[in-house]
Amino acid sequence: MQQTAPLTPQLFFDTISAFQRSAAIKTAVELDVFTRIGEGNKTAEAIAEACDASTRGVRILCDSLSVMGFLDKQNNQYDLTETSAAFLNRHSPAFVGSAIEFIMSPVQTRGFEDLTNAVRQGGSTVSEEGSLAPDSPMWVKFARGMIGMMMPAAQMIAGNLGFEPERKLKVLDIAAGHGIFGITIAQKYQNAEIYAVDWANVLQVATENAQKFGVAARHHLIEGSAFDVNYGEDYDVVLLTNFLHHFDKPTCETLLRKIHGSLADGGKVMTLEFVPNDDRVSPPSEAMFSLVMLAGTPAGDAYTFAELKEMFENAGFSRNEHIPLGSLPQHLIVSMK
Amino acid sequence: MQQTAPLTPQLFFDTISAFQRSAAIKTAVELDVFTRIGEGNKTAEAIAEACDASTRGVRILCDSLSVMGFLDKQNNQYDLTETSAAFLNRHSPAFVGSAIEFIMSPVQTRGFEDLTNAVRQGGSTVSEEGSLAPDSPMWVKFARGMIGMMMPAAQMIAGNLGFEPERKLKVLDIAAGHGIFGITIAQKYQNAEIYAVDWANVLQVATENAQKFGVAARHHLIEGSAFDVNYGEDYDVVLLTNFLHHFDKPTCETLLRKIHGSLADGGKVMTLEFVPNDDRVSPPSEAMFSLVMLAGTPAGDAYTFAELKEMFENAGFSRNEHIPLGSLPQHLIVSMK
Repeated sequence: MQQTAPLTPQLFFDTISAFQRSAAIKTAVELDVFTRIGEGNKTAEAIAEACDASTRGVRILCDSLSVMGFLDKQNNQYDLTETSAAFLNRHSPAFVGSAIEFIMSPVQTRGFEDLTNAVRQGGSTVSEEGSLAPDSPMWVKFARGMIGMMMPAAQMIAGNLGFEPERKLKVLDIAAGHGIFGITIAQKYQNAEIYAVDWANVLQVATENAQKFGVAARHHLIEGSAFDVNYGEDYDVVLLTNFLHHFDKPTCETLLRKIHGSLADGGKVMTLEFVPNDDRVSPPSEAMFSLVMLAGTPAGDAYTFAELKEMFENAGFSRNEHIPLGSLPQHLIVSMK
Repeated sequence: MQQTAPLTPQLFFDTISAFQRSAAIKTAVELDVFTRIGEGNKTAEAIAEACDASTRGVRILCDSLSVMGFLDKQNNQYDLTETSAAFLNRHSPAFVGSAIEFIMSPVQTRGFEDLTNAVRQGGSTVSEEGSLAPDSPMWVKFARGMIGMMMPAAQMIAGNLGFEPERKLKVLDIAAGHGIFGITIAQKYQNAEIYAVDWANVLQVATENAQKFGVAARHHLIEGSAFDVNYGEDYDVVLLTNFLHHFDKPTCETLLRKIHGSLADGGKVMTLEFVPNDDRVSPPSEAMFSLVMLAGTPAGDAYTFAELKEMFENAGFSRNEHIPLGSLPQHLIVSMK
């Protein structure tokens, strides 16, 4: 006789409570709990004092973080896990904590608060003040918040360029944001010139980063909408990172045709996207990203490789390669002119 | 040589995005997606029509629900899982979907929106309008929303009473809410008389349920705060469900002394609580509940059995038994006068 576990609504209960976990990690980053623990504060009392918070609040918060896997608790002492030491201690070079400033920003969460109406009408109910508005301060938050999260992908894009190290390269970085994709190429290719397109307020962040990473002399700015500005021409590489998913297919194709026209012969587009499988329900992070676009844009989506390939081909590109990037939720698509 | 997986910020990314999952399941229940699928609508188009929503929105929502494990997707058709059929189809007697109306209500979520300040000050920043206010409409939402979720616990409490079936029983149901705990005892014990304490607006819900379950003639009301009203005396059973966690220990002990005085000799208190282990970080659901109390109350907590035992002993109880209830996150504490 086969034993079957009794059905429980645990998954439902965990899911309706999941917002509490987001709130807890946001609070932990805002109070810099991980940094203070990394500095040697291990008890609730010591962490509370270092964070200028209450012992009771810190005890409950740190217990929650331990349940969630962000801390190890032993004998009433809290310690960082290997992962939180690497990514959530502000002293770590791989710190990604500031991603909360974008992913949990009011503009992002508001779309989810009204998700029911977004499903009803088939698109975001907050798009006018949302992601597609010109000069939206949201993209400054993206630029400041997401640079840490994007570092590994930036390294992988630069590593997949496939040009000789000394080659002169003209690189267009569309919707550059923090600028790290172009900046990383400029670091790897000493003769690369980067042209970064974005709103003026966002490009200030990219410029700061270009200075910080020592490539400012080869980092040039093109201010405005990627749909409107004149790119110039003869680019060897166009970086199209985290951009296509905001738009419907015709809009994407229009942009891709413009990009095609700006490329030199033999030029290529490096597209970074959440690319779900054809079933659209795997892998998990890639597939879930569609929902972010439903909540936040009028008609964006997480496109499958088949869909991306068709858009690129319709825009005149001859060959498209799909390169998953290890454990990253985003994938690389390399498209040849 | 040992292979170690590279560190990734995936847990962090999943956690800062977790609120999106809560939003998705809330929307699915609000649009009754599970019920419509259960009725035979399997494609995005059919579900959209049945839910009066857009195909695009439903497709993206149902893909997300499939990723999260609430739906099975095969050949572009969505089907209920065994679990969602049992708990999220409104036609199922075990439907628990309306729990969103309490757990994701603005009063509940507001505390989490300001969790950082709750950690700073050691208690909820919204308590005045929150859980402890008299006649708070929040408790009507609790009563209406949580009855399905509480059915299994109600059955288990009634099953653990340990009295002869024909015995006359006088039962006090403190903070009765939906009333299901007392009602279930009244169903099992034909000679039980239930006295339900709660705010008047909440007791209306309990009365509706007592009528629905055919025990209204033995279901009596005591309107007001459990701290203030006169309970009467000679109770065989006091039900203390989901209540102690809202208060600090001295307040709990004050209440327990009052309860002790209302019990007949040989009477017992049946307490239903989230009871974490002494380490306070396991089991997960029990341990995470402290955070809900930090966000929503001035000084509540998820108490360990050792803490509960001490409170009951200080209030004059002679023996306390800790009974975990299978897979339920809540445990039963039986305390003898």
